[in-house]
Amino acid sequence: MVKKLSTDPYKGVRDFYPDDMAVQNHIFSAMRRASESFGYEEYAASILEPAELYESKTSDEIVNEQTYTFIDRGERKVTLRPEMTPSVARMVAGKRRELAFPLRWYSIQNFFRYERPQRGREREFWQLNCDLFGVEGVAADAEIITVAASVMKELGASEDDFEIHVSDRTILDTLYRDTDKKFSLGLAEETHRAITRLLDKRVKIDDFEQQLSTLLNGNSEAAAWLIKELESRKSNPSLEALRARLAERGVNNVIIDTSITRGFDYYTGMVFEVFDTDPQNKRAMFGGGRYDRLLELFGDEKLPAVGFAMGDVTARDFLDSHGLLNTRGSTTDLYIAPVTAAFVPDAEKLADELRRKGARVAIGLTDKKVGDQVKVALKKSIPFFAAFGEEERGGNVRVKHLETEQEESLTREDLAEFLIGKRA
Amino acid sequence: MVKKLSTDPYKGVRDFYPDDMAVQNHIFSAMRRASESFGYEEYAASILEPAELYESKTSDEIVNEQTYTFIDRGERKVTLRPEMTPSVARMVAGKRRELAFPLRWYSIQNFFRYERPQRGREREFWQLNCDLFGVEGVAADAEIITVAASVMKELGASEDDFEIHVSDRTILDTLYRDTDKKFSLGLAEETHRAITRLLDKRVKIDDFEQQLSTLLNGNSEAAAWLIKELESRKSNPSLEALRARLAERGVNNVIIDTSITRGFDYYTGMVFEVFDTDPQNKRAMFGGGRYDRLLELFGDEKLPAVGFAMGDVTARDFLDSHGLLNTRGSTTDLYIAPVTAAFVPDAEKLADELRRKGARVAIGLTDKKVGDQVKVALKKSIPFFAAFGEEERGGNVRVKHLETEQEESLTREDLAEFLIGKRA
Repeated sequence: MVKKLSTDPYKGVRDFYPDDMAVQNHIFSAMRRASESFGYEEYAASILEPAELYESKTSDEIVNEQTYTFIDRGERKVTLRPEMTPSVARMVAGKRRELAFPLRWYSIQNFFRYERPQRGREREFWQLNCDLFGVEGVAADAEIITVAASVMKELGASEDDFEIHVSDRTILDTLYRDTDKKFSLGLAEETHRAITRLLDKRVKIDDFEQQLSTLLNGNSEAAAWLIKELESRKSNPSLEALRARLAERGVNNVIIDTSITRGFDYYTGMVFEVFDTDPQNKRAMFGGGRYDRLLELFGDEKLPAVGFAMGDVTARDFLDSHGLLNTRGSTTDLYIAPVTAAFVPDAEKLADELRRKGARVAIGLTDKKVGDQVKVALKKSIPFFAAFGEEERGGNVRVKHLETEQEESLTREDLAEFLIGKRA
Repeated sequence: MVKKLSTDPYKGVRDFYPDDMAVQNHIFSAMRRASESFGYEEYAASILEPAELYESKTSDEIVNEQTYTFIDRGERKVTLRPEMTPSVARMVAGKRRELAFPLRWYSIQNFFRYERPQRGREREFWQLNCDLFGVEGVAADAEIITVAASVMKELGASEDDFEIHVSDRTILDTLYRDTDKKFSLGLAEETHRAITRLLDKRVKIDDFEQQLSTLLNGNSEAAAWLIKELESRKSNPSLEALRARLAERGVNNVIIDTSITRGFDYYTGMVFEVFDTDPQNKRAMFGGGRYDRLLELFGDEKLPAVGFAMGDVTARDFLDSHGLLNTRGSTTDLYIAPVTAAFVPDAEKLADELRRKGARVAIGLTDKKVGDQVKVALKKSIPFFAAFGEEERGGNVRVKHLETEQEESLTREDLAEFLIGKRA
């Protein structure tokens, strides 16, 4: 007896049926348009990376609890990448002498994290990563934020739909040193990093102040001081300059917010997060920042780098909650339905003719009734439909727009151009 | 001391720097155009699948020696998919009642096999998979082969560059039964499958006849008879009908060749392979066939299915050896070089204007000399270049085509349209 296999995908990953894929391609194509309009070039790496790539710099939680890491048949320890930045840093370091800087690179790739699947969080997700290598300073920081804002606009968002919160890691560094000095704590570098990660999770943690105080050698006075000071250091000349630069470029929804830290250890300067302004859903959707020292991991000199990553799941949720997710259009222009199977070869000839002219045509290959074939085309959201029988062998083709039920009679010669012209 | 990390990718996988990615996108876009012109819709699944999906039907060699299989943090046995067919069968079986048949589906996805890396073989590779579900018979078989031929044509191949070899698994089934009967061998079903897999690897095996004879209970007379008979069963009415049907549709490079078997166990009817005709490289590049019974694995009734898969590595090698791999064009239209950093903000304004009109523009953000910025643009294959200084603040922009060194002076208003019009 053969065991019956389950049709479920692996837990926490998604199947993309054509309707889902159309939404995914809609999101990816907005990401691509925005990135390429700023001269960013596409690159990619494998989902499999040597495990050591994550063992030094990615946040501890991700490495210890959330990576998919295993030993291959050749005894190599490998990881399914949980984020792109280590891979892109590896690639840039690997060809640093050959590449022409500045580099503007983007990728749309998938990632794995072993988390409990929940709304907005899957074990496999996709991300746009945009990075600018080789330029320091406010112009580069402003550019990367402008690209992020452009992706939102390409997705159909207006400036009211989102807010960009900016901060700077150096504010935190100074603050930690000041707290340390004021309360004579003798904090290690690693404690600084732990505080930053804790601040990043602040809204999700109930006993935040308790945990902060633990990190500060149990000094609750120091914890309270740090929280108060963090709030007061909002007026910062470099962040003001960044906001002014963005305003000049038409990006006006920028807020200086020192509570933004980003979880990853590698950030060295500006950090930002894009928030949904919907009161039902007011949360950080994605972000990025400056990470000038990541290439040192590969024994390289530091290299100015700034970038961001935006996930497909948050993008889809945003579109959904803002009513921006319109129903899909098929990639197919026309469905040709032979009235009986005997007409299939001649209908195929017409279809092949139209394809050579650039139209995208599906065709019925069986004896199915024309009415049933209409249903098939409707279910696939194919916009145009044509029955093919004796009349169509020589003469005109009657084409029906399925949504409006409008019919037009066209010559074989005009049909392809008509269909292509009707594409959205 | 911090350990220096290697910049090498994991063994047997590839990094795609922008130049490599441009080639990859060129191949993928040809695959997409051909598939969509026949009304195929894109779908996708995760690279991670439950391991059991491969344990019953994929060829033994792949499952036992070549899969990446590991246990996740929740004790689930998972596999990085080595091929698409089990995943697509799983997806179709999972929504069989909701889907409108016929289904025409395609995907461009990555796969892993643990093999010794060598020319034309990587541990991670990409494949186009095209499948037509729900239609029996020669029209469907001919369509899927026509799509395969169209991909080759979209890649720039002429009919002389490749040959399509077709056969039918039922010829083998009959032949095995005849051999069994004539020599009273009492062969098991599993032996039939083993013979098919052996035939598939025939050209790569030195002691093929020896191994065949072993499978036939050591009967070398039976082995010799089987080989001779296989050759003689080339004239087959259903394959002749398929060839005629393809010729009607303008696919003329079809050869009936009963030595074609395809390795996978799941094929039930027509099988085909596309061969490179280059005498230096005369080998099967890719193929497919009919597999009407795969959905039974999921407890479903059989469903007519025919499809093929084409890999990126063989596609690239083919383009390379036939001189079809032209140098890439950048996705960026124009590089704007501010003559000093003081001009960056105004140059950005121009760039943003052009972007809003659909042009793709990169910009220098530093004090780099214009001559050095020309070199950067050249290295990135960006076609047009413009310096931005005092003159460009108000007036026209002088745009240089870097390859021909031709210059044109254009108004800001006309520039975007000019750049878009120059795209290939």
